[in-house]
Amino acid sequence: MRVLVLGGDGYLGWPTALHLSEVGHEVGVVDNFVRRQYDHEVGAESLVPIETLTTRVRAWKEVSGKQIASYVGDLVDAEFTYKVIREFAPDATVHFAEQRAAPYSMIDRQHAVYTQTNNVVGTLNLLYAIAEIDPEIHLVKLGTMGEYGTPNIDIEEGWLEVTHNGRTDRMLYPKKPGSFYHLSKVHDSHNIEFACRVWDLRATDLNQGVVYGQQTDETSRDPRLATRFDYDAVFGTVLNRFIILAALGEPLTVYGGGGQTRGMIDIRDTAECIRLAVDNPADRGEFRVFNQMTEWMSVLQIAETVADLHPNEVKVDYLANPRVEMEDHYYNVKHTGLVDLGLKPHLLSETLLSSLYDIADQWKHRADVLAMRPTVQWRDARREPR
Amino acid sequence: MRVLVLGGDGYLGWPTALHLSEVGHEVGVVDNFVRRQYDHEVGAESLVPIETLTTRVRAWKEVSGKQIASYVGDLVDAEFTYKVIREFAPDATVHFAEQRAAPYSMIDRQHAVYTQTNNVVGTLNLLYAIAEIDPEIHLVKLGTMGEYGTPNIDIEEGWLEVTHNGRTDRMLYPKKPGSFYHLSKVHDSHNIEFACRVWDLRATDLNQGVVYGQQTDETSRDPRLATRFDYDAVFGTVLNRFIILAALGEPLTVYGGGGQTRGMIDIRDTAECIRLAVDNPADRGEFRVFNQMTEWMSVLQIAETVADLHPNEVKVDYLANPRVEMEDHYYNVKHTGLVDLGLKPHLLSETLLSSLYDIADQWKHRADVLAMRPTVQWRDARREPR
Repeated sequence: MRVLVLGGDGYLGWPTALHLSEVGHEVGVVDNFVRRQYDHEVGAESLVPIETLTTRVRAWKEVSGKQIASYVGDLVDAEFTYKVIREFAPDATVHFAEQRAAPYSMIDRQHAVYTQTNNVVGTLNLLYAIAEIDPEIHLVKLGTMGEYGTPNIDIEEGWLEVTHNGRTDRMLYPKKPGSFYHLSKVHDSHNIEFACRVWDLRATDLNQGVVYGQQTDETSRDPRLATRFDYDAVFGTVLNRFIILAALGEPLTVYGGGGQTRGMIDIRDTAECIRLAVDNPADRGEFRVFNQMTEWMSVLQIAETVADLHPNEVKVDYLANPRVEMEDHYYNVKHTGLVDLGLKPHLLSETLLSSLYDIADQWKHRADVLAMRPTVQWRDARREPR
Repeated sequence: MRVLVLGGDGYLGWPTALHLSEVGHEVGVVDNFVRRQYDHEVGAESLVPIETLTTRVRAWKEVSGKQIASYVGDLVDAEFTYKVIREFAPDATVHFAEQRAAPYSMIDRQHAVYTQTNNVVGTLNLLYAIAEIDPEIHLVKLGTMGEYGTPNIDIEEGWLEVTHNGRTDRMLYPKKPGSFYHLSKVHDSHNIEFACRVWDLRATDLNQGVVYGQQTDETSRDPRLATRFDYDAVFGTVLNRFIILAALGEPLTVYGGGGQTRGMIDIRDTAECIRLAVDNPADRGEFRVFNQMTEWMSVLQIAETVADLHPNEVKVDYLANPRVEMEDHYYNVKHTGLVDLGLKPHLLSETLLSSLYDIADQWKHRADVLAMRPTVQWRDARREPR
């Protein structure tokens, strides 16, 4: 199959592109490198040094003998989006190409507007390009578990059978997202579901948990194939951030009481989930949703796990929660769709953590501890960026 | 109270501004006149001639002795939005300032992107301006019954108590909107609910039915105070459009079988509903939703009512439905919130229809029948604008 990975230069896009190439797909990567640009704004780089896309693609060719095509441009530019879809003629597009940090979207008005415009317009352009050029193309779209929030009922996979006053309907699962970023993904999901209805497109929406890990079978074959390892308070996700704090001898910063629970997934499983979605496409007209996560833990449990297994002594610090979220809530998530397609999850283990400790230890001299302090406050609409 | 009516030059914004002024509020109107600009693009004007905002405001001063402030600009321009909120210092903002035609949003990619960007970014800017300048300001936001689609269960007012696997939660009512325009309003609702949660804003979201009628007690006091009466296939809403077709001796064009049902409301009730919402603000942190409609009818019933009561013989023509929608569905809507606040509905009656027939008859020489033919096809992503 021909698979186009949008946002294929990012933390997950790049390892996914390699994994899809490795299993035999013809892969193309699209990126505008805006994620690398955010680094300059936030003032923190990937802890592990990463190569340019050109070098990455060349290294992969050397290591695997396989060619990955690359396209540089922005999905918000419709002319570019149409051109790429026409030229590469994919069977599937994997869409990672969105601003993906909740704190970034909450910096101020401008970042909220940027996040929603960038994400929603990019996806709209892509939907139109698929509908106009080839409605057979399967859209595999990255969403987030954060779209659901923390409802007091079981979280189903995107749809919910609702019974009310004696009548029943299958409805989109009601969402209660926790940031303007998470909202942008909810907007996308609604737009995509509609496009499936009116244009008979085929789409898989993957509501992904917090991803941890930095290596996959493919990226570990050459240092030039390394993917990002973000640790700053804006782009660093919780487990990765804790591991780097531990390596630095800093206390793990838990927001609030730490009772807030997150769905989690190993980076290797992310790449494999996407392969499974690509290899088992949705039907024409189907808006299919999977919860792409394999286990869940409270933030405090994550901190305690990282601390307990770490060779050094690690403390936990409780910071006032910069987010507005429930810290004591019910959480039960259905996530059988991808397992039914064949996913064999890597659950969080001592082995995985040890290897991450080694990576963090190797590169900890590159870390800026100040960049790990949360400065974006959800409750404060008016704030200065760091 | 000081009330700022955003989109106050439009079909409903203008009569609402007059009604709020008449009952004693200090009213300001904000508009960028883009609705008048769409006329040139679509090639059809309001059937009833309308004056410029300057003339309208002057006429209202002459007739009522009351001054309405006016601000010209675009909510998408954040600097303008902040300036207006700061200068006028409203207690409530009534937000009509969105692209409001489903067919317009479905013309092509560019119109879909424009509609969602314009509506979502304008509302985000407004939310930030309120949060930063004065979070006491009550946001009264116009949504649409079209956000709900046609679920197989009763439509509640914005929220739904969901019981699932023995547990219960109060959740946002799951939406299934029928166009990129309707989707933009769903996006707005999610953004506003979040802003109420994180910034303790107060908001009332009014999911309005299809509005009919052209005169209110205030607009009828002087011809210069007339509001728009749109009849074209893009901006003309169903009942108004049928009345003008009848006046022209043309058959009423029902899309599909006509079984699709619409919530409806008289233009006088729209203005009064908004007064009720303004005079009874939501609490801080409350995202309050009302279904702003007073009755519902199938499109065929609407056509038959217009035909039966018309002095001349009127035929009904069935056109292939350009929309993607169910034409045979359950429809039962709860709409008690505004009645509880004191609304006394004007239901569709012979008297109202007769007065509309007279208006249509007086101005029918201005109509372009060609502009009444639907040219926007939902199923076709690629199309030429008229």
